[in-house]
Amino acid sequence: MRILLINPNTTAAVTDLLVAAARPVAAAGTELVPHTARIGFPYISSRAEAQLAGAHLLEILAERSGEADAAIVAAFRDPGLQPARELFDLPVIGMSEAAMLTACLLGGRFGIVTFSTSLAPWYRDCVALNGLLGRCSGIRTLEGPFRDIAAVQEEKEELLVALAARAVEEDGAEVVILAGAPLAGLAPRVADRVAVPLVDPIAAAVKQAEAVVSLAPRKARAGGFARPAPKPSTGLAPALAAWIAGER
Amino acid sequence: MRILLINPNTTAAVTDLLVAAARPVAAAGTELVPHTARIGFPYISSRAEAQLAGAHLLEILAERSGEADAAIVAAFRDPGLQPARELFDLPVIGMSEAAMLTACLLGGRFGIVTFSTSLAPWYRDCVALNGLLGRCSGIRTLEGPFRDIAAVQEEKEELLVALAARAVEEDGAEVVILAGAPLAGLAPRVADRVAVPLVDPIAAAVKQAEAVVSLAPRKARAGGFARPAPKPSTGLAPALAAWIAGER
Amino acid sequence: MRILLINPNTTAAVTDLLVAAARPVAAAGTELVPHTARIGFPYISSRAEAQLAGAHLLEILAERSGEADAAIVAAFRDPGLQPARELFDLPVIGMSEAAMLTACLLGGRFGIVTFSTSLAPWYRDCVALNGLLGRCSGIRTLEGPFRDIAAVQEEKEELLVALAARAVEEDGAEVVILAGAPLAGLAPRVADRVAVPLVDPIAAAVKQAEAVVSLAPRKARAGGFARPAPKPSTGLAPALAAWIAGER
Amino acid sequence: MRILLINPNTTAAVTDLLVAAARPVAAAGTELVPHTARIGFPYISSRAEAQLAGAHLLEILAERSGEADAAIVAAFRDPGLQPARELFDLPVIGMSEAAMLTACLLGGRFGIVTFSTSLAPWYRDCVALNGLLGRCSGIRTLEGPFRDIAAVQEEKEELLVALAARAVEEDGAEVVILAGAPLAGLAPRVADRVAVPLVDPIAAAVKQAEAVVSLAPRKARAGGFARPAPKPSTGLAPALAAWIAGER
Amino acid sequence: MRILLINPNTTAAVTDLLVAAARPVAAAGTELVPHTARIGFPYISSRAEAQLAGAHLLEILAERSGEADAAIVAAFRDPGLQPARELFDLPVIGMSEAAMLTACLLGGRFGIVTFSTSLAPWYRDCVALNGLLGRCSGIRTLEGPFRDIAAVQEEKEELLVALAARAVEEDGAEVVILAGAPLAGLAPRVADRVAVPLVDPIAAAVKQAEAVVSLAPRKARAGGFARPAPKPSTGLAPALAAWIAGER
Amino acid sequence: MRILLINPNTTAAVTDLLVAAARPVAAAGTELVPHTARIGFPYISSRAEAQLAGAHLLEILAERSGEADAAIVAAFRDPGLQPARELFDLPVIGMSEAAMLTACLLGGRFGIVTFSTSLAPWYRDCVALNGLLGRCSGIRTLEGPFRDIAAVQEEKEELLVALAARAVEEDGAEVVILAGAPLAGLAPRVADRVAVPLVDPIAAAVKQAEAVVSLAPRKARAGGFARPAPKPSTGLAPALAAWIAGER
Repeated sequence: MRILLINPNTTAAVTDLLVAAARPVAAAGTELVPHTARIGFPYISSRAEAQLAGAHLLEILAERSGEADAAIVAAFRDPGLQPARELFDLPVIGMSEAAMLTACLLGGRFGIVTFSTSLAPWYRDCVALNGLLGRCSGIRTLEGPFRDIAAVQEEKEELLVALAARAVEEDGAEVVILAGAPLAGLAPRVADRVAVPLVDPIAAAVKQAEAVVSLAPRKARAGGFARPAPKPSTGLAPALAAWIAGER
Repeated sequence: MRILLINPNTTAAVTDLLVAAARPVAAAGTELVPHTARIGFPYISSRAEAQLAGAHLLEILAERSGEADAAIVAAFRDPGLQPARELFDLPVIGMSEAAMLTACLLGGRFGIVTFSTSLAPWYRDCVALNGLLGRCSGIRTLEGPFRDIAAVQEEKEELLVALAARAVEEDGAEVVILAGAPLAGLAPRVADRVAVPLVDPIAAAVKQAEAVVSLAPRKARAGGFARPAPKPSTGLAPALAAWIAGER
Repeated sequence: MRILLINPNTTAAVTDLLVAAARPVAAAGTELVPHTARIGFPYISSRAEAQLAGAHLLEILAERSGEADAAIVAAFRDPGLQPARELFDLPVIGMSEAAMLTACLLGGRFGIVTFSTSLAPWYRDCVALNGLLGRCSGIRTLEGPFRDIAAVQEEKEELLVALAARAVEEDGAEVVILAGAPLAGLAPRVADRVAVPLVDPIAAAVKQAEAVVSLAPRKARAGGFARPAPKPSTGLAPALAAWIAGER
Repeated sequence: MRILLINPNTTAAVTDLLVAAARPVAAAGTELVPHTARIGFPYISSRAEAQLAGAHLLEILAERSGEADAAIVAAFRDPGLQPARELFDLPVIGMSEAAMLTACLLGGRFGIVTFSTSLAPWYRDCVALNGLLGRCSGIRTLEGPFRDIAAVQEEKEELLVALAARAVEEDGAEVVILAGAPLAGLAPRVADRVAVPLVDPIAAAVKQAEAVVSLAPRKARAGGFARPAPKPSTGLAPALAAWIAGER
Repeated sequence: MRILLINPNTTAAVTDLLVAAARPVAAAGTELVPHTARIGFPYISSRAEAQLAGAHLLEILAERSGEADAAIVAAFRDPGLQPARELFDLPVIGMSEAAMLTACLLGGRFGIVTFSTSLAPWYRDCVALNGLLGRCSGIRTLEGPFRDIAAVQEEKEELLVALAARAVEEDGAEVVILAGAPLAGLAPRVADRVAVPLVDPIAAAVKQAEAVVSLAPRKARAGGFARPAPKPSTGLAPALAAWIAGER
Repeated sequence: MRILLINPNTTAAVTDLLVAAARPVAAAGTELVPHTARIGFPYISSRAEAQLAGAHLLEILAERSGEADAAIVAAFRDPGLQPARELFDLPVIGMSEAAMLTACLLGGRFGIVTFSTSLAPWYRDCVALNGLLGRCSGIRTLEGPFRDIAAVQEEKEELLVALAARAVEEDGAEVVILAGAPLAGLAPRVADRVAVPLVDPIAAAVKQAEAVVSLAPRKARAGGFARPAPKPSTGLAPALAAWIAGER
């Protein structure tokens, strides 16, 4: 099966990290098709950036959804996920929802650990939107700047491991999610140094995408995730306008 | 004070409805500055459409936020509201949040009544995102098509009044919100025919915008609604890119 | 419009503080009519005191509700608010509900900061009763006694600012409510020293009262906020007994 | 032990019903001391009435709390309960909280059945205030008037049994509370005609009062239920003023 | 009345502690019939142990339920409680549910204090299963090993009192439950040293069992706690198999 | 990889159904190892039955956990799941949790549809225990008896499809879970006749088991899912006693 792995950030080095973390867990017959956003930000870290990146995600899927069996939105906080799931026919999986749902299989409450303070309230919204606040023991973030988004996981490795330990000891986390695309691949490397199971969001997303493709659910034809009726629009990217107009 | 009333739909006739409903409740010194979206859809009614309209809202505010003391996102479900609140310095008020918070002053639980079935799950998300599910007695929607978005409130008036009555009698609604931009102005016209107070979202939004401007809160400098640090971007509308880059 | 600003405490100096804080934000045509409780306590700070003050509030409104377009219950925790909203025809706004709902327009989660430890569990009930626990990041209170209820905001100013900072940094508050009638007027004075927007409850209450009066909702004729059927009573203050008996 | 059974309604015939229902379940050594309110309403059925009745409850307890080992607030919705628990040294038990907590021992979710439509939203608040919405399957009420508050349980017996059946079959109630002081004693009489256990609130309250007296908990000296510090007051009933002033 | 007090642990010395704590609060006519599990663990402290002990509880009740008017599951976390309530005709009361519901009569939010760290997440599940997370201020546990399960309450007395104080001061507990069968009897001994009421779970369970027996509720004949239809089985203890087969 | 598919029911024909539904979705390298319980009930349908089946599940895993990479508890309501996850080293996946978490990837709220009325309150507990009530639109069950547990899905096919339609139209389900081991394999057969995606729990469980094995999480060494310290026991099955004693 082919899985479109869409990095909504414009930094190709982060796409490389994601693919490197995803490949070892992918099944034998799974082909990962990476796509780095052409429009947007080197690294999405705010609601406004996510609004814009989520809009561009729809443009990408309007062009490429026909090439794949499923798509992954490979940024924590899943920009554009629900709109994409509604609009397109292929399954679309968000990296943060996949991480949280997978964590639920490994323990009662999960903690979220990430590298930047500014992300906490925004991540909390994401947990709430998924209806999982009752399963979340807390969100812990590092303070202070980092040098390079594509190398932040090495720069901060010790601090992140220590933070995960606090999530376990002080918050009662029974699983820890190492969140944020730039941390892709960190979980397996530090698993022995944290006392509870770790979840790597991109790895979880690949497995959940494979699961959903295998189960071959029908696209909704009613309710909040049915494809909207064809509609005219003004000023959209042509492929997306055509899709929304029902011309494809 | 000047309030930018942004209709994220591209239908100018709906903007006219909104302004007509807003003007009678506006304070003496309030000037309403209407703006109809140039990009997007005649009438937003899905998650995907809201994702795109919310992105365009940021473009509009990048151009015009300097002209006003506050802005209103005049579409139910508040596309782009939280990103706009984060990114810009002026207060931004959503029509649905204003309606719900105002309803909370008039009764214990509010019902939401609207004209199109497809809106219900999407509206429910909006209530949840505002943390107000415990205050909402339910969402009731009409079935069947309508002829003209700008005249739907007249076409369906009897049915909407009957639906509001059911919200009161069967769901226990103590206030009813007549939701959706195309219903702007309906509430005062039918108030005598419903046994509980009605809320007209655009009217509520104008009063809440005036309230917030009068209170003159400082823009957040920390937390999830502080303006993000300046950031480079690719492919955005120039005014928005400049704002995000901190050049303005 | 005329707004009856009822201080359910018997301390006239606190009424003066409230009016001084309310007046600058009131609209041009708004007349504030202050009323200090004749029965009750210098400063309500317990459930029992609120039960009694809330009962007296109904007596006050039975005498004076005809004089005004709306009334404000000007004590945090809103003693007697829901009974008053049910019983009388004019809109009644609580200072704490107004503060919380206004705070919801300014950020995702609000913190509550006040000057006396004993108030915390009681305030928490108030948040819960309003269905807003999910929007509240926590309640922080000062320890230790104060000298004079009418001057506590000056005596404790530094400590309250520091407490607000902790609400932001440790609890994730995105807005802070400076709660309690004796803190009326403090918010604008210290706004520059706290990193998130501050809400002054009496100022919020005035604006919400104006908003509701402008929207002119019909009094409920069904559900939990309809005026109860006329009923005989024993031992009540005459004006209140007459109102409840439906003689007025 | 002596239990003060306070009927906050002024109808002595309802007190008689309550005592008749309470006596058969009381333990051998339990003496019930009935007290009918002198101030208030024949039958409390609104928020405003409860506010006033709850204030009078404090007056009653200021006079009589020294005579008993515990007190019961014998009106559904528990007017004045939390203030009384805070202010006085003896345990105070509410009829509705006792019914709900006892119901929790008999099934997963309880239904509430009562005889008057107007009570539903007010009862729902009571469930919410007790933090038990998740244990409540719903509130069902009869429509239409009744002839005599002290004989409503006979007049409506068949209808109430049918309503309880619907609570079981349609709402999934696993226990049913027959709520409202005027229904005291109905539960044992109709128990064989309802498929799940029934709870009679006054009977539950007597047993919970006995339980708490036997367990002899210390009065709180900290937190929200510690007795407030002595305080001056104006215009209160003398015994209550003296108690609040710490003179007793 | 006869109450079967079943200690699902195999340590008779803990049964002795439980009986010693229960007897002083039992009513005059109450006979306690202690039973120590023959199968299982000296002290249950994990989910797996509770699964097995709960299964054995059903075997015990199949043999002995006919001898008593009610049964108590005398281990915190109530292993097998809900299955027993469903399967047998007599009322079955869990020690932790009784403690929590009794605590709700004494304050707004209860804290749980116990002697072993490993119990916290498991206890939290118990609070959640009872739908009482909103009433729980937190769970605090001691760290470090103990010498003898039957003497842990003496060994750790000072530490437990200090922990209860932290539950009050830092978590806002208004009542404290001293949880775990090995702490039976500690609450009355240290009540004067904690600023809020304490609950001893076994004492609470005895009073709640007496309450329920006095109220004489009918066994459910519908819903989730009706006795299941007779069913064949393989490999169960004979008395239990016979009961489940409806042969008794 | 080898996945132990444990049917906690004693009916081998149901095991056959489960394997037949699981095999088509299993990955190329996945070997399913079916195991039918030797102790217990033909079909678990009550809390008591689940308590006993869950205990036996631990015996099965004590014997066979070494043979597999993961285990599936193949009965809805997941008897013994959390204890097994705590006690054993291999990942253990419950059929109902897998179905619910997978459903969360396909829509906002899932409905549960099953064939027997008595299952509804018990299933609701399962949703609550997983913290997913906010994602569940409701549980719908057929009334009336069925002839043969292994053929119930054919007998009731039309009725179940109609029930799923009601879950979509009346409850707002955006995904429907066809719950209960005897319905294994029904979902793909009727997918075209229901307007939203369907989830087959055993198929979901196989994919989630594969996902978790691929992600290779470390067994928890702290918190509620760490293996308990070695402990003596009395009367357990030898293999289980040895495992719990830490002898293996």
